[in-house]
Amino acid sequence: MQHRWLPLALLCLSLPAADLRSTVESYVAARQGPIVAELAALLAIPNVAADRVNIRRNAEHLKGMLERRGLAAQILETAGNPLVWGERKTPGARRTVLFYIHYDGQPVDPSRWRQASPFQPLLRDGRMEDGAHEVDLAGRAKFDDNWRIYARSASDDKSPAVAFCTALDALAAAGRQPGINIRVILDGEEEAGSPSLTAAIERYRPKLEADVALILDGPLHPSGRPTLTFGARGSLALELTVYGPKFALHSGHYGNWAPNPALRLAQLLASMKDEHGRVLIEGFYDGVDPLKPEDRRILEAVPDDLPGLQKLFGIARPDAVGESLQEALQFPSLNIRGFRSGYTGGDARTIIPSEAIAAVDVRLVKETPSGPMLEKVLAHIRRQGYQIVDGEPDDAARLKHPKIVRLSRRDATEAYRTEMDLPQSVLVTEALRRIWGAEPVRLRTSGGTVPLSPFIRAMGFPAIGVPTVNFDNNQHSENENLRLGHFFRAIVTMAALLAME
Amino acid sequence: MQHRWLPLALLCLSLPAADLRSTVESYVAARQGPIVAELAALLAIPNVAADRVNIRRNAEHLKGMLERRGLAAQILETAGNPLVWGERKTPGARRTVLFYIHYDGQPVDPSRWRQASPFQPLLRDGRMEDGAHEVDLAGRAKFDDNWRIYARSASDDKSPAVAFCTALDALAAAGRQPGINIRVILDGEEEAGSPSLTAAIERYRPKLEADVALILDGPLHPSGRPTLTFGARGSLALELTVYGPKFALHSGHYGNWAPNPALRLAQLLASMKDEHGRVLIEGFYDGVDPLKPEDRRILEAVPDDLPGLQKLFGIARPDAVGESLQEALQFPSLNIRGFRSGYTGGDARTIIPSEAIAAVDVRLVKETPSGPMLEKVLAHIRRQGYQIVDGEPDDAARLKHPKIVRLSRRDATEAYRTEMDLPQSVLVTEALRRIWGAEPVRLRTSGGTVPLSPFIRAMGFPAIGVPTVNFDNNQHSENENLRLGHFFRAIVTMAALLAME
Repeated sequence: MQHRWLPLALLCLSLPAADLRSTVESYVAARQGPIVAELAALLAIPNVAADRVNIRRNAEHLKGMLERRGLAAQILETAGNPLVWGERKTPGARRTVLFYIHYDGQPVDPSRWRQASPFQPLLRDGRMEDGAHEVDLAGRAKFDDNWRIYARSASDDKSPAVAFCTALDALAAAGRQPGINIRVILDGEEEAGSPSLTAAIERYRPKLEADVALILDGPLHPSGRPTLTFGARGSLALELTVYGPKFALHSGHYGNWAPNPALRLAQLLASMKDEHGRVLIEGFYDGVDPLKPEDRRILEAVPDDLPGLQKLFGIARPDAVGESLQEALQFPSLNIRGFRSGYTGGDARTIIPSEAIAAVDVRLVKETPSGPMLEKVLAHIRRQGYQIVDGEPDDAARLKHPKIVRLSRRDATEAYRTEMDLPQSVLVTEALRRIWGAEPVRLRTSGGTVPLSPFIRAMGFPAIGVPTVNFDNNQHSENENLRLGHFFRAIVTMAALLAME
Repeated sequence: MQHRWLPLALLCLSLPAADLRSTVESYVAARQGPIVAELAALLAIPNVAADRVNIRRNAEHLKGMLERRGLAAQILETAGNPLVWGERKTPGARRTVLFYIHYDGQPVDPSRWRQASPFQPLLRDGRMEDGAHEVDLAGRAKFDDNWRIYARSASDDKSPAVAFCTALDALAAAGRQPGINIRVILDGEEEAGSPSLTAAIERYRPKLEADVALILDGPLHPSGRPTLTFGARGSLALELTVYGPKFALHSGHYGNWAPNPALRLAQLLASMKDEHGRVLIEGFYDGVDPLKPEDRRILEAVPDDLPGLQKLFGIARPDAVGESLQEALQFPSLNIRGFRSGYTGGDARTIIPSEAIAAVDVRLVKETPSGPMLEKVLAHIRRQGYQIVDGEPDDAARLKHPKIVRLSRRDATEAYRTEMDLPQSVLVTEALRRIWGAEPVRLRTSGGTVPLSPFIRAMGFPAIGVPTVNFDNNQHSENENLRLGHFFRAIVTMAALLAME
């Protein structure tokens, strides 16, 4: 099938963006079979970060994929899983772009997947939740855009690697050179927080330097429009334990006398936010830049369907931190991820529990680094009369302090934000605008936290996220999937990025 | 051994209380072997309420025990486990006393017991927790007061049945008639809430009528002094579910926008009580009688070791509902038995949970019946802006009401209280005061809730609790035990009650 399109592709040398798009689209349309087969082969290698043997199989496989596209590729050893690095210089190119992708995937619970294995890719003719049927994958040459591949990492984050390689193939088939020097770094521990990547910077910095990093990860905006992400909130995860009696007491015999730690914790948590979701901790929002009119315009341009989201989520009235979801994401947030104390439901017992635990995450923005934020939270807790301790309080501490809270976890990842008016930002935005003939959705700050933040901050050059997969991909959950139409479009987007000059 | 004491016992006819005490004590001292053996034989019959076959074996066994003491005994069938009833009239007696005991026990998890089986009684020469050693039980004639029998229901509530029967033996051995008409009712479902007993009242009421019911159950006051309980708090158990988004959302992508149900629930619970544990729900304490000086004197006379309890429990500052534990128990209380939402600890995930659940119990006093109390709690919840629903809210409800709480459980047991100045109360108090030569601890309201409350309220005559076992008996838990000194003293107390006129 490839040969039929080659003559057409050869015409596309140096053609403008619209022609690059049709060139790549035609290439992809003609070679769907081998492209999807290459993806399926990669998905068939289990990639849970803790599975060292298979992780290395992934790394070797990816190194081979890069080499086949003319990249000088290496396995870079780290204290943890290996990185896969590749480089291809383009004669005359003025800029170097570092493409970041991760090849590890979230842990799996195979029993919850509706297929033999998360690592045996399954093709369905639509969304499983909509009653889609299984379609035979092996040997197939044509695929409908609405069909989906179900497998761990189909979306997060193996398909960008295949799309990237295929975009290089498409350019090559069109006889076209990339416009940039290419560097690629494939991370094998993203889902485990990328500890080895950041640690490896000092060792491998010269291999990683670039003018801009493009992070090929994550889903498109739900509108399905091409999307760029210029920042991500950080996260400060805390675990708080409030203490009651040393052991659970009978709520009849001691209720009204022995303090209840679940109530204490409820009061503490309630003191942190108002009725409308605004944080009451002193100084919590301090330093957050007021939005510039230009920022506000960009936020307003994000085509969020807020009434649709409210309906989907069953939310009658959103919290009132910002005037919109996008505005809300420009501010730090405080969230109770979970709490527990005593028993509920069938296990409920008439006790005053001995402790109550809450897991809290504070989402940070660029202006609110984790250190000062933690101090503000702790100062607030102290103002509620608490003694803050690091370990289980002993008898003396219990008898001395009426209110004790233990801070048993304080994991922080900082936020990052790349200004949208930097030359690199403008270049990438233009590349997408030109190839798709429309304004990309520009997210000033993605609400979530990316483990890559420390890497981005340590490298010191701008980073921009280029997500490509479908929003409803069940990322991090069972039955992860990739809509093939999104995958095919990703190849076009990658080609546009490679063609940047 | 018995014969040796008979001549002495015969001298005791109509002797004053001090002599009755020494008579019974001597009887018990001389016959410890067979008395403990009778207890051990009863404990060897498994008595979990759901074990119908063994429950009936218990009932038949107890019927035989009563018959051997000259009671006309019957098995009274109910919809559930049988009741064992007995009666023995005393010529010339002016009063009829109904003795209540239960013969079922809490469920057991044998793996958590430090003995072959909870139904193979084991003798130890002290408290297991203090390193006591096993002592051979079979064939033993003498026992130290500090020794303990470990077995399910050793304390709760089989030993009172044996003590009661032995007290009749001791009176008989002394040639002495009881001073009252005796009625006994043995409940086989107390640990399951006594559903069949209350339901059986209409069928068996004439057999149950009495001037006073004495409830032979529960532990002595921790001081170890003879104790009488004149009431118990009721309980209103509620389960509340507060709703957030229909499914858990990513706290990064939607934090600051999607309301968090754990925070909402924390705010709701926090609104119910102040910093000092006082309930803020409007009208919560309405109707509770101010304590009369006499009541206050009695409460003050309870020898609670509050500093000792604070130390034991690790409580720096008790809640401030009353000026003491006893005073606090005269008021209704509101307790969070448990709550949960999302995940904590190693399972914590960066989500906005979809719901948050709290199990709450309101302890009731006589003046605060459950119906109006529930209405007050619900009115408070509504004042916080909540729509209260009975089932899972549908999409329309979620989109209509910003704050929804589901009330999924509302189990109520009413409180009861027998006034301490009633003739029956005075009679029982006097009986204990005379036999022990000291003021009994009088608990105006026991903090806990007894399933017997509906029975007491339905029968309409006063009820008084006469607990006898050791406080540290591991009741309701594994390794339940009975201190034998308490058991031997229980026999004396029972004799005093039987001797009342």
